[in-house]
Amino acid sequence: MSSVESAEIVDFSGLIARLAQHLPAHCLLVRPEDTRPYECDGLSLYKTLPPVVVLPENEAQVIAVMQACNAFDIPIVPRGAGTGLSGGATPHAKGIVLGLAKLNRILKIDPLAATAVVQPGVANLAISAAAAPYGLYYAPDPSSQIACSIGGNIAENSGGVHCLKYGLTVHNILRVRMVTSDGQVLELGSEAPDSPGLDVLSAFIGSEGMLGIVTEATVKLVPSPACARVIMASFDTVEAAGQAVTDIIAGGIIPAGLEMMDQRAVHMVEPFVNAGYDMDAAAILLCESDGTEEEVEDEIARMLSIFQQAGASDLMVSRSEQERLTFWAGRKNAFPAAGRVSPDYYCMDGTIPRRHLGQVLAAIAAMEVTYGLRCANVFHAGDGNLHPLILFDANQPGEVERAEQFGAAILELCVQVGGTITGEHGVGIEKINQMCVQFSREELDVFSGVKRAFDPAGVLNPEKLIPTLVRCAEYGRMHIHHGELRFPDLPRF
Amino acid sequence: MSSVESAEIVDFSGLIARLAQHLPAHCLLVRPEDTRPYECDGLSLYKTLPPVVVLPENEAQVIAVMQACNAFDIPIVPRGAGTGLSGGATPHAKGIVLGLAKLNRILKIDPLAATAVVQPGVANLAISAAAAPYGLYYAPDPSSQIACSIGGNIAENSGGVHCLKYGLTVHNILRVRMVTSDGQVLELGSEAPDSPGLDVLSAFIGSEGMLGIVTEATVKLVPSPACARVIMASFDTVEAAGQAVTDIIAGGIIPAGLEMMDQRAVHMVEPFVNAGYDMDAAAILLCESDGTEEEVEDEIARMLSIFQQAGASDLMVSRSEQERLTFWAGRKNAFPAAGRVSPDYYCMDGTIPRRHLGQVLAAIAAMEVTYGLRCANVFHAGDGNLHPLILFDANQPGEVERAEQFGAAILELCVQVGGTITGEHGVGIEKINQMCVQFSREELDVFSGVKRAFDPAGVLNPEKLIPTLVRCAEYGRMHIHHGELRFPDLPRF
Repeated sequence: MSSVESAEIVDFSGLIARLAQHLPAHCLLVRPEDTRPYECDGLSLYKTLPPVVVLPENEAQVIAVMQACNAFDIPIVPRGAGTGLSGGATPHAKGIVLGLAKLNRILKIDPLAATAVVQPGVANLAISAAAAPYGLYYAPDPSSQIACSIGGNIAENSGGVHCLKYGLTVHNILRVRMVTSDGQVLELGSEAPDSPGLDVLSAFIGSEGMLGIVTEATVKLVPSPACARVIMASFDTVEAAGQAVTDIIAGGIIPAGLEMMDQRAVHMVEPFVNAGYDMDAAAILLCESDGTEEEVEDEIARMLSIFQQAGASDLMVSRSEQERLTFWAGRKNAFPAAGRVSPDYYCMDGTIPRRHLGQVLAAIAAMEVTYGLRCANVFHAGDGNLHPLILFDANQPGEVERAEQFGAAILELCVQVGGTITGEHGVGIEKINQMCVQFSREELDVFSGVKRAFDPAGVLNPEKLIPTLVRCAEYGRMHIHHGELRFPDLPRF
Repeated sequence: MSSVESAEIVDFSGLIARLAQHLPAHCLLVRPEDTRPYECDGLSLYKTLPPVVVLPENEAQVIAVMQACNAFDIPIVPRGAGTGLSGGATPHAKGIVLGLAKLNRILKIDPLAATAVVQPGVANLAISAAAAPYGLYYAPDPSSQIACSIGGNIAENSGGVHCLKYGLTVHNILRVRMVTSDGQVLELGSEAPDSPGLDVLSAFIGSEGMLGIVTEATVKLVPSPACARVIMASFDTVEAAGQAVTDIIAGGIIPAGLEMMDQRAVHMVEPFVNAGYDMDAAAILLCESDGTEEEVEDEIARMLSIFQQAGASDLMVSRSEQERLTFWAGRKNAFPAAGRVSPDYYCMDGTIPRRHLGQVLAAIAAMEVTYGLRCANVFHAGDGNLHPLILFDANQPGEVERAEQFGAAILELCVQVGGTITGEHGVGIEKINQMCVQFSREELDVFSGVKRAFDPAGVLNPEKLIPTLVRCAEYGRMHIHHGELRFPDLPRF
């Protein structure tokens, strides 16, 4: 948790001299005042000053960097916009940071094929902006979409509010052009809907910078809906709200977004955004329909009927685009709002089968007592993707540690009910211990084997995502103190 | 192309004795009269009599088979229902066939989560039948769905008419439980929408039995639509029909099915099925809409408007469920119909970007002259997935070879316009040479690396899917005689 500077001296002079032959001076940062901005990503609990930051401007320079690092056996930490929340871009004290921000051109929009070809540093929202004149947009929409880059989205398999209906990043990327750690250029996938051979494109998406560096991606675009409206539904218990989510999906509806906020989250954001949220509700749901006017009218009617039957205490439907955006404003500003009510917060990310929503929320409420910390719940309910926000004060002795333990307990609860330790934020360094809980040694060995297939030397983003045998053995010893099952009352998957 | 029997003597007695300790006698076939039915799959051009066929009844037996084969270093060829069209289940003269047909139980239907847990030998259509009482079905629908098994669908990443809207097999499988070649049990994916770690589930789907043996899968179910109607549209040229396909997709519509048949295909099937197809049209499109009554009415109207603007010479909309099934009958019976008009036919499978449809069909027509054989075109137009049916007579000297050359030329044309050598039938042994055209050596090396991560000994389905360096060098020498580009007039991707 503390700031770590380079502990052991590594001589970078040979590498720097070689890189200087291939990159202009403004693309090569070595002074601490220049590399300091790269000391962490969105997981600011972990900081390491990178000795060297390289910012290539084209694919040839990426290849040169990879070959140079390979020759000097220097680790490479790839970085997009640095908005990641699990430490995927946390620097390595003995390695370089490879920033892709300068590869930021949109190379082609093909409105007939509904595709765009982009470089990795293009911001997520910039793709939709460029596609808008053709009535198209790029669907996956992380909260950070104004800043986060498509290369980072590919690395983390990012999600967002619209992913329930339109899929995660992996469902919206057709082709990636990438450079391996030894400087080879590979093309994965194709513009055609299927690709022969092993589907290594899917394995590459979400690989957190451990398999290669994206230099170009072909993304799918989808038609901008003619119409979108959102329902705001209040419930007296979180269990009832959880059941309503299950009922919507079981009713054959795939909403364009289906989000839940519990009362603590509502009380946190309403004074900040004045969205008109129901402060008396134990939980509110935001449920969106998009499509043609006729489709939306029909779907909203079916959604309202299901919410009524599920016992909603209040129901509102947005009457204008302005009102729709207001309804969403609180959900989208939950993180800044948390910053106003608590000195620090820790945003977790786990996924559970939807049917366990009510039960897991009750267990998290019980953990608030155990760990002596408050937790607000804001999440992609339709996907079962939780984002508990643990509120703490780093200046109070013990609170950082309790927040970390609280977070780990939530993740392990997710695994216990048949879910997973991430939804869309990745593993990085943050959740590497929980990988030992989620996967067997044999399953982790397969990950390592795939890693070796792309990066035999292991220089790409080392010590992230895949825990070593030693780490799991140590974590297992710590873990066993709590008993094999932390929550024996919960059903096994 | 000829029938190959075991050329070199391999002693299976030790393996058989060991297998007999773990499996009952009726699960272990060794007499040629018993193993003969397994000599080929749907690609009947290639036949090899398997020395041993093993039909395990549970996962423990699968593990025992894998451990035994591993101990004796005997290759294993997995087999589902044997309906595959690319030779993925063609036996190996020195190995066993591992048939999964007896693992045929549906273990669970969860209507709330909209999932089913099934064993690999369950037929594709049987899942939908079991889910029907809950108003749900399993969407991917290969033509062989009454017979083909979900395990085979996973191995081949099978598609079907509905995959344009609902995705391929890879988009409809949440979790796989599988046994590795050394007998370890792994779980890939999860019931949650995202899974941490590398997405090896996606790499596993479509891996043609080279990475492991499925013993259980969790599949996604989708709501059965309340209503479905299909438009039959006639066009005077295939180019106009191709453009209409592009216009539908560019118009923001994702039909539940969008299929094309050219005139030769229509003339082949109409006398067989009497579907009322327009015999004067150069090509017909079948375009389906499904959903609620209101959605279908709205979407059919938009589709009709697009087809009119694209110059359709005739338009019909199904007025009843019976008529809808009649419209589809010809498309679904194209293969048997081909068997009536030609002694033999060779069904190809390639995918191209939709915008090249008209151009590629014109090039295939020109190839009919070059190779002196007729070709009927029936395909998933919305996906750009071609199924040219090359008609030939194996009893006429040279026709088999010309059919193979014609097929190879079509596949390489697909690659040249930015497409791929398969859509949904896999590579198997049929297209292993074209893998050398589709991929660079470095890309093939990544496939081999992933294969090694799962199956270090290389005993699972050897000599399929991934060509060796030697094979590609030899094929390249043959290929170069035709010039580097076979079709220099076509645009490069």
